[in-house]
Amino acid sequence: MASREEVSMVGFAIVAYAGDAKTALMKALDEARDGNFEKARELVNESTQSINDAHNEQTKLLSQEAGGDDMDVTFIMVHGQDTLMTTMLLKDEVQYFIDEYERIAKIEKNLGIQK
Amino acid sequence: MASREEVSMVGFAIVAYAGDAKTALMKALDEARDGNFEKARELVNESTQSINDAHNEQTKLLSQEAGGDDMDVTFIMVHGQDTLMTTMLLKDEVQYFIDEYERIAKIEKNLGIQK
Amino acid sequence: MASREEVSMVGFAIVAYAGDAKTALMKALDEARDGNFEKARELVNESTQSINDAHNEQTKLLSQEAGGDDMDVTFIMVHGQDTLMTTMLLKDEVQYFIDEYERIAKIEKNLGIQK
Repeated sequence: MASREEVSMVGFAIVAYAGDAKTALMKALDEARDGNFEKARELVNESTQSINDAHNEQTKLLSQEAGGDDMDVTFIMVHGQDTLMTTMLLKDEVQYFIDEYERIAKIEKNLGIQK
Repeated sequence: MASREEVSMVGFAIVAYAGDAKTALMKALDEARDGNFEKARELVNESTQSINDAHNEQTKLLSQEAGGDDMDVTFIMVHGQDTLMTTMLLKDEVQYFIDEYERIAKIEKNLGIQK
Repeated sequence: MASREEVSMVGFAIVAYAGDAKTALMKALDEARDGNFEKARELVNESTQSINDAHNEQTKLLSQEAGGDDMDVTFIMVHGQDTLMTTMLLKDEVQYFIDEYERIAKIEKNLGIQK
């Protein structure tokens, strides 16, 4: 069972891990926009480890609570969970942005359009 | 007024409903990517009921709290609210992904490009 | 240190500010879909102030907590944090939707395709 301070420490850790993943995913969108699709996909892969680390931290507390431990939720823990879940959604969506950018770039090349 | 256990049960229910909706929405993105726009829109519609069910569960607790009941927030309840809100954002965005995919597919057809 | 009621008031304020920002961002997507790219970018800029206002409210409570104040998290405060974080993600993504729509519209014009 974790104290308020320990719960908050987990919250800070999740914010940090998920923040790293978000940075990589936003860079992936920039690379895709600029036509660097291999680099974009590398950055998406790079985000996986940080998301897994954040997810493991969240799962530990959810499991302890489900096992009967009553722990206080703190603001920073809520912020951590938000940061993780929005970053996971971003990762789910990024693949479609990349796919669309790749198809748009192919069409532009076909037509000789400067983007 | 709901006990910690009851709040957590609501959290689990929201995770389940919103999870079903998210699965349908991610399938909708795959169908749109593959050019199946009618199927994609059907899947978006299918997600509506699950989102409404999850939303109703959340609203009940928000209303009780606004009415003066002091209830403990639990980790799984936070996770439920996160899952619902990220899924609702995905639903808002999916229509634009589908619209873009449909316009890209039309252009590709016009140019005889194999996607 | 804020009471449950004060925390909830902050939650309501964040929901309201972030809700205003989300409304502007969804309108921006509609304008981009319809080819009005200047209007779309204006609406994205309009969302910035509301997001900053919501973010400042959240930061105040996170700072108080980090400074040692133990405050109760309430459902509406969780809902406020969720609303803010999903709206900030939407803002991050909207620029790529607008960019893609602008490139698609340019291609359609080049080919004489009515969208």
